[in-house]
Amino acid sequence: MTDLLWQKPDVQVDARIMRFLAGNDVLLDREFFLHDITASKAHVEGLARIGIVAAGEAASLARELDALAEDFRSGTFVLDERYEDGHSAIEARLTERLGDAGRRVHTGRSRNDQILVATRLWLKEKLSALATHCRAIAAACLDRAAQPALPLPGYTHLQRAVVSSTAMWFAGFAEGFIDDALRAQQTLAWIDANPLGTAAGYGVNLPLDRAHTTQALGFSRMQASPIYAQLSRGKFELAALEALASALLDLRRMAWDLSLFTTAEFGFVSLPPEYTTGSSIMPNKRNPDVVELLRASYATVAAARCEIEQLLSLPSGYQRDLQFSKGSMFHGMTHGLAALELVPDLIGRLRWNEPAMRAAIEPAMYATDVAIEQAAQGVPFRDAYRAAAAAAAAAGEGRTPERSLAERVSPGGGADLRLAELAARLRALPD
Amino acid sequence: MTDLLWQKPDVQVDARIMRFLAGNDVLLDREFFLHDITASKAHVEGLARIGIVAAGEAASLARELDALAEDFRSGTFVLDERYEDGHSAIEARLTERLGDAGRRVHTGRSRNDQILVATRLWLKEKLSALATHCRAIAAACLDRAAQPALPLPGYTHLQRAVVSSTAMWFAGFAEGFIDDALRAQQTLAWIDANPLGTAAGYGVNLPLDRAHTTQALGFSRMQASPIYAQLSRGKFELAALEALASALLDLRRMAWDLSLFTTAEFGFVSLPPEYTTGSSIMPNKRNPDVVELLRASYATVAAARCEIEQLLSLPSGYQRDLQFSKGSMFHGMTHGLAALELVPDLIGRLRWNEPAMRAAIEPAMYATDVAIEQAAQGVPFRDAYRAAAAAAAAAGEGRTPERSLAERVSPGGGADLRLAELAARLRALPD
Amino acid sequence: MTDLLWQKPDVQVDARIMRFLAGNDVLLDREFFLHDITASKAHVEGLARIGIVAAGEAASLARELDALAEDFRSGTFVLDERYEDGHSAIEARLTERLGDAGRRVHTGRSRNDQILVATRLWLKEKLSALATHCRAIAAACLDRAAQPALPLPGYTHLQRAVVSSTAMWFAGFAEGFIDDALRAQQTLAWIDANPLGTAAGYGVNLPLDRAHTTQALGFSRMQASPIYAQLSRGKFELAALEALASALLDLRRMAWDLSLFTTAEFGFVSLPPEYTTGSSIMPNKRNPDVVELLRASYATVAAARCEIEQLLSLPSGYQRDLQFSKGSMFHGMTHGLAALELVPDLIGRLRWNEPAMRAAIEPAMYATDVAIEQAAQGVPFRDAYRAAAAAAAAAGEGRTPERSLAERVSPGGGADLRLAELAARLRALPD
Amino acid sequence: MTDLLWQKPDVQVDARIMRFLAGNDVLLDREFFLHDITASKAHVEGLARIGIVAAGEAASLARELDALAEDFRSGTFVLDERYEDGHSAIEARLTERLGDAGRRVHTGRSRNDQILVATRLWLKEKLSALATHCRAIAAACLDRAAQPALPLPGYTHLQRAVVSSTAMWFAGFAEGFIDDALRAQQTLAWIDANPLGTAAGYGVNLPLDRAHTTQALGFSRMQASPIYAQLSRGKFELAALEALASALLDLRRMAWDLSLFTTAEFGFVSLPPEYTTGSSIMPNKRNPDVVELLRASYATVAAARCEIEQLLSLPSGYQRDLQFSKGSMFHGMTHGLAALELVPDLIGRLRWNEPAMRAAIEPAMYATDVAIEQAAQGVPFRDAYRAAAAAAAAAGEGRTPERSLAERVSPGGGADLRLAELAARLRALPD
Repeated sequence: MTDLLWQKPDVQVDARIMRFLAGNDVLLDREFFLHDITASKAHVEGLARIGIVAAGEAASLARELDALAEDFRSGTFVLDERYEDGHSAIEARLTERLGDAGRRVHTGRSRNDQILVATRLWLKEKLSALATHCRAIAAACLDRAAQPALPLPGYTHLQRAVVSSTAMWFAGFAEGFIDDALRAQQTLAWIDANPLGTAAGYGVNLPLDRAHTTQALGFSRMQASPIYAQLSRGKFELAALEALASALLDLRRMAWDLSLFTTAEFGFVSLPPEYTTGSSIMPNKRNPDVVELLRASYATVAAARCEIEQLLSLPSGYQRDLQFSKGSMFHGMTHGLAALELVPDLIGRLRWNEPAMRAAIEPAMYATDVAIEQAAQGVPFRDAYRAAAAAAAAAGEGRTPERSLAERVSPGGGADLRLAELAARLRALPD
Repeated sequence: MTDLLWQKPDVQVDARIMRFLAGNDVLLDREFFLHDITASKAHVEGLARIGIVAAGEAASLARELDALAEDFRSGTFVLDERYEDGHSAIEARLTERLGDAGRRVHTGRSRNDQILVATRLWLKEKLSALATHCRAIAAACLDRAAQPALPLPGYTHLQRAVVSSTAMWFAGFAEGFIDDALRAQQTLAWIDANPLGTAAGYGVNLPLDRAHTTQALGFSRMQASPIYAQLSRGKFELAALEALASALLDLRRMAWDLSLFTTAEFGFVSLPPEYTTGSSIMPNKRNPDVVELLRASYATVAAARCEIEQLLSLPSGYQRDLQFSKGSMFHGMTHGLAALELVPDLIGRLRWNEPAMRAAIEPAMYATDVAIEQAAQGVPFRDAYRAAAAAAAAAGEGRTPERSLAERVSPGGGADLRLAELAARLRALPD
Repeated sequence: MTDLLWQKPDVQVDARIMRFLAGNDVLLDREFFLHDITASKAHVEGLARIGIVAAGEAASLARELDALAEDFRSGTFVLDERYEDGHSAIEARLTERLGDAGRRVHTGRSRNDQILVATRLWLKEKLSALATHCRAIAAACLDRAAQPALPLPGYTHLQRAVVSSTAMWFAGFAEGFIDDALRAQQTLAWIDANPLGTAAGYGVNLPLDRAHTTQALGFSRMQASPIYAQLSRGKFELAALEALASALLDLRRMAWDLSLFTTAEFGFVSLPPEYTTGSSIMPNKRNPDVVELLRASYATVAAARCEIEQLLSLPSGYQRDLQFSKGSMFHGMTHGLAALELVPDLIGRLRWNEPAMRAAIEPAMYATDVAIEQAAQGVPFRDAYRAAAAAAAAAGEGRTPERSLAERVSPGGGADLRLAELAARLRALPD
Repeated sequence: MTDLLWQKPDVQVDARIMRFLAGNDVLLDREFFLHDITASKAHVEGLARIGIVAAGEAASLARELDALAEDFRSGTFVLDERYEDGHSAIEARLTERLGDAGRRVHTGRSRNDQILVATRLWLKEKLSALATHCRAIAAACLDRAAQPALPLPGYTHLQRAVVSSTAMWFAGFAEGFIDDALRAQQTLAWIDANPLGTAAGYGVNLPLDRAHTTQALGFSRMQASPIYAQLSRGKFELAALEALASALLDLRRMAWDLSLFTTAEFGFVSLPPEYTTGSSIMPNKRNPDVVELLRASYATVAAARCEIEQLLSLPSGYQRDLQFSKGSMFHGMTHGLAALELVPDLIGRLRWNEPAMRAAIEPAMYATDVAIEQAAQGVPFRDAYRAAAAAAAAAGEGRTPERSLAERVSPGGGADLRLAELAARLRALPD
C-alpha cells in the first residue's frame, strides 16, 4: 500500500486490524471515484481563485485530474488495495505526476469533505435516475391504461369485490409512480447543497471560494454550516433511500399482483418467456422469477436504510462509524434502481388473459352497483345495502362487466379514468 | 355494542375473535374522529350537489355532524367500545337523530374512504405542526448563534480536533432544522391529495362531486385513481413518519451532545433544573432525563415506521392488515411531535460553562491552523501537515481560541457564520 | 400525585416536562405490578434474613403486600397517575399502612432493580405462554395431519409444481411450531437469572441474601454482576421478542397460505364464519379478516423489537432512554401471544374443499415423478429430466394424486410423514 | 456460461434480465461451495445405499468431489460467472469428468435442497465460531477482572453515581459474553437439523437414506418435513443473525464505554497505538477508529437481519425472493464475526489511567453508602436517603474508593465479584 497520509513512524501496523479498518473501502470508492475527481477539480479552481495554487499549477492539476478520470474509465488506472482509499489515490497520483502542486491539493479540505461532496454528487445523479425510471414506469402504465379496457375482478381482502378493469389497474400504478417521481425530485432538491469547503467539520482559516465550487459543481445552494455538513452525513443518504423505497413499495405491490395473476389459479397474466426460468428438478416448471426478485428488491433497500439508521445514534462531529454508510448506500441505491429499470418493458409486454378474467367475475360482484342504484333512486343506502346483501346472488341479472364499468362515473372510476389529468401531472414533472 | 353494519343474522359472534379483530380500534379512532366528521360534512355536501340527499336533509346532517363534534369535544359524546369504530358511530348517531337521512350518509363511500380521508387530514395537520416545531427550533438556535460566541472544543471521533464555538454549534443545528422544516412542507405537499370519493378502491356508479370535496376540505389536488388511493395507505404514513424521523435524527444527535456536555467530565452545559430528576436510591443524583428521552424518541418513531413497513408486502386492494397502520401512525407522530415541542425552550435556557470549555482547548488543537497557514504561505500542504504533526504540542504558541475563530474565514466558519443566509432560508419557508 | 421520592424542595416542576417524562409509564406498570409486589416480598424476606427489617416488620410487610395485590386484582386499589410509577406506589402504600417499616422497604434496592426483576418474571411467564401456544398449535397440526390426507397442489414460485397433501401441509407447520416452542424454552432458560439485589447497577454495602431471593422467586441462577444486570436490560427483551417473532414468522406464512387458499380462485379452504366479517359498502362480501390480522401480527412484534433495538446504542449503566423499552415489550408480547392463542381453534376448524384441490392438480405435476422413476431405472437423471420436460403434458398418464403420494417414500414425503417422530419431539418438550 | 440446467430451446435469453436474475449469486456461492461439495458427497453415498448409483460410480464421484474441493481451495478451479451458480458448477464438473455418473448426481435432490444443506452447515460453523469468540472475550474479561481492581466511577444517566471498579466493569462484560456464547450454542442446537433429502419441498419417489446423510454430515437430527425445510429458509438465518447481534449489542456498549473513556475529558483508557489512526487534515489527531467500527458493526448485522425479515412475508413453498437471503447472511455473519475476533486482544491490552479515574471520584458518590449504612443501623431508608441527600457534599468524609468497594458486599458487588462462579459457567459451556 502507498504510505498512509497520516502515518507516524513509531507505530507498528497490525495487518488484521488494518484489514478490519479498511474493509473493502477502497473498492467501494470506485463507485464515486469520478465524482471525487470532479469535486477535486472544483476545489483546485477554488484554491487558484484565492491564490493558494498558482494559475499554472491549477491548469496542470486539472489536466492530470482529467487524465486520471480517463485512465480510470479506460481501466488503465485501477483503484485497488494499493491505496488506503480513493481520496488518497488522487493525491498520490497528482503528487507523483506534479510534485509540489500535488502536495498542495489537499489544502483546506479533508477526506470527510471529499466523501461528503462525492456522495452528494453521486446521490443527485441516482435520484435523477430514480425520477427518470419512475416517469418511464408511469408513462408505460398510462400507455396501457389508454388501451381498450378489459374487465378485471376488483379485490378487497383478496376476495372478489366489484368489477374493475385493466385500465383502472394501470392508472392506479401510473399515479403511484408519478408521485414517486415527484418525491425523487423533491429529495434531490432537498439535498442539493454543496458541502465542499467545510473541511473536517469546523471550516478552515482560508477564504475558500465556496460560492465558486457551489456553482461549478452545479449545486443549487451552499451547505453553510460545517457542523451541519457532518450532521447531514447519513441523514441525506437515508432520505435518498427512503425516496427509492417509496417507489419500490409500489413495485412490491405490483409484483405481488403479478405473482398472483400468473398463478394457474388466477391465470390473468402471461409474462414474456424471458421473464421466467425453469427448475433443476421439476421438468414441468416455468417460474416468474423476475417478478419475485422485483418484489424482493424492497428488502435490499430497506436493509441499506436500516444499516445507516443504526449508525446514527451519535454525538455531532465525524465518527468512523459513518464509514459503513457508504457501502450500504451504494448497494441499496444501485440494486433498487436496477430493479426499477426493468419495469417499463415488463409492463409493456405483459399479456392479459381475457377469458380467465371474465370467468372470475361473478354475479354477486354487482351487488354494490345494485345497492347504490337503489340509493340513487331514493332508498336510504343502509336499507338498500341490506336488501342487496339478501339478494347478492341475483345481483348479476341484466348486468355485464361492461355496463358496470360504464356506469362507474365517479372521478377515477371505470368511466372517468382521468388519464389526461395524470398525463398532465407526468408532463409537469421536471426532467 | 351497536349492531355491526355488515352483520348477517345467521353467524354467531365469538367474543375472543371479536376482541382480536377490534383491538383498541375504536379508542384509536378518537384521535381523528373530528376529521372524520369534517370529511363526512364534505361528503354530505357532495351528495346534495348530485341530488342524493335533499337540501333540507343535507342541512340537518351538517347540523347534527356539528353537534356531534361539539359533543365529542365537550365529552358529552364518548367514543368507546359500544361502537365497532368511529365511522359506524357517526352513521349510528345520524340515523338515531335523523332516521332515513342518516341511513343515506354512507351512500357512495366506504369505511376505507373515511379512514383514508381522515388520515390524510390528520397527517396534514401533524406535518404542519412538524414544520412549525422545526422552524421554532431553528429560530431558537439562530437566536443563540447570534449571541457572543464562546469557544467550544470541536471533536472528531470524540477526540479534541480544532477550536469550535457555541455559535458554530447552534448554527449547525439551525441549518439542520431548517432542512427538516422544508422536508415536512415537501411531504405535506406530496400527500395533499383528496382520496374521498374512491369508495372501496374501485369508484362507484354515482357522479360524486369530488372536485367539490377536494376544495371544501382544502386539498390541493384530487387523488384520481381509486386503486392508487388504496395503494397510498401506508405509503403516505411512511413518508410522514420519515419526515418526522429526519427531525428526530437531528434531535438525537443534539441530545447526545447535551448528554455528553452535561457529564461531570465534559461539564460544558448546565440544564435548567426542571429538565432533570433524581434517583430513588442515590441521594446525590440530578439526572438529565429529558435529554435522554429526547434522544430515545427517535426509537418510537422508528418503531411506528417499522410496523407499517412490515405490513405493506401485499397485493393491491384493501386488506385488513392495514388496520395496524393506524395505531402506529398515531403513536409515532404524537410522541415525536411532543419531543420536538420541548426543544425550543430547552435551547433557549441551557447555560454554557465557559471555564470548562476553555480548559478543554489544548495547544495541539491549533495544529491544523498552523499547517494551513504554512500552506497559505506557499509550503505544499502535505509537507506543512508533516511539520505541524511533528510540532503539534507547540502549535498553541501565540494562539488563542479567539484568534483561531477569527481566522476561520471559510464560509460557515467561526468568522463567517452565514447566519443571515440561514435566517433568510428560514423566513422563506412557507408558514 | 404523591411526592416524588427524589424531589428536592427548591426545584419547580414544569407540567409539560413532567408529562413528557412520565408518558403513560404508571399505566404501563399495571402490567407487571403483581410481579413487582412478588419481588418486593422476596426482597423483604431477604432484608429480614440479614437483619435490616425485624421479623415482625417483615411479616407485616408481607401481609400488606399481599393485601395490595388483592386490592389491585379486585380493583379496590387503582394504579393511576396519582403515582409516579408502580414502584413508588408500593412504597407509598406500605409507608401509609406501616410507617417506618414501609420506609425501610427500599433499603438496598433501586427502582431499576425492581423494573429488572419484575420484567424478568413477566417475560418468563410470557415465554412460558409462548411455548404453550406453540405446543398447542403443533398438536392441532399433528391431529389434522393424522387425518386421511387429501391431495393438495404443491407450489414453488406460487406455480403448481408437484402433488402435495393436506397431511404434508399440516406436518410442515407442526414441525415449525415444535421448533418455536423449543426456542421459547431455550430463551426462557437463557434469561432465567435473578437481577434482584444489584441495586442501581453497582451493588450495595449490605450482604443481601441474593441466594434466597433467587430461590424464592424461582430463578434457576443468580445474575451475578450488577453491571451486567443493567446491560441485560433490553437485551433480554429483544431475545424474548425474537423468540415470539419466530413463531409469528411461521404464522405469517400459514396465514398467507390461508389467505390464498380462501380466495375464490384457489378455493381450497373454508373458514368458520366467525373468522370472517362483512363490508360497510359491498353487500356481497365475507372477508377473512382474522387471517389477515394474524398475518399482520408479525409487524407489531417487529415494531416492538425495533424500538428496543434503536434504544440500545448506549454506554453501560442505566440511562433513561431504556424507559421506552417497557411499553414496547408489553405491547409486542401481548399482541403476539393473543394472535397465537387463536390459531389452534382455527386449525381445528378450517375445512378443505376437496373438489377444488383435485381440480387444481394437472398432469404436468407428475413430470418429476416420471423423471425420477426413469432415474431409478438407470437413466441418468439429467437425461431423464430432459425427456420428462419434453413430455410434461403427458406425465399424468396412468397416474393419480393418490399414487404420487403413495410413492413419495423419501422420509417426510407423502408416504412417510414421520408424524410419530414429530409427536415424540413435541412430547419431549418441557412443560 | 455453461448451459442452464433448465433452459428450453425456444426461449431467448435477455442479457439485462439475466444479469438482474443472477446478481452476484455465483460469486456468493464461493462462500459455501465447500459445504455444497461435502453435502454432495453425502448425497452420493445415500444414492449408492439405495442403488441409484453403483458402488464404483459412487467412489468415482467421491474422488472427483474431493478433487474439486482441492482445486477450489488451491485456486485451480475458479467459481465465476461461467456458471449459473455453484450447484450447477458441481454437476457440470462431475459430468465433464465422469459422464453418466455425473448426470446421476442430481437424482432426488433440487438446488433448493443444496442451498438449504450448505447454508445449514455454513451456519453451524459460524455459530460455533461465534461461541468461540464469545468465550474468548469472556475469558479475556475474567482475566482482567482478576487483576487488582482500580476504582472507576460508576455512572447512571452518564452522571457520576457511585464508586465502581475496573474489576466490576470487566466482570459485567464477562457475564454478558458468557450468555452470548450460551445463546450461540442454543441456536446451533436449534438449527442442527438435516434438510438434505427434502428436494423441492415435497419429497421424492425414492427411499432416500436420510438417516445416513444426517449422520454423515454430523447433524443431530433430521428435519423431517419437506414443507418445513422450505419454511425454515430465512427463519434459521434470522435466528443465527440474532444470536450474533446479541453479542454485538454487548460489544456496542463496550465500545461506547471505550469511546467515552478514551476522550480527553474522561481520559480513563489508553488504547494500543495499532488501534488508532490519524487524520488527513489535522496533524494532531490519533483516533480510536477500531473502537468506533466495533461499535458500528452492530448496524451491519442488523441490516442483514432486516433484509431477510423483509423477504419473509410469503406463502409457503420456495419463492425466488429468498435468493437475497444468501448475500445478507454471508455479509452480516462474516462482518460480525470479524469484529468479535479483534476484541480479546483489545481487552487484554487496553491500559487504565488510574489518576484520571481517581480524580473523577467525587465525595457525593459516597452518599448512597452513607444512606445505606444509616439504614443498616436502623434508620428507615427513606429518612436516611433524605438526610444523605441534604449532606451529599460531605458524604466523602473518612471514605475512600477502596473502602467503598471493600464494603460493597452484596453478591456481585466490589467485595464479592463472583468470578469463580462466572469462570465455572464459562467452563461449563460446550466447546
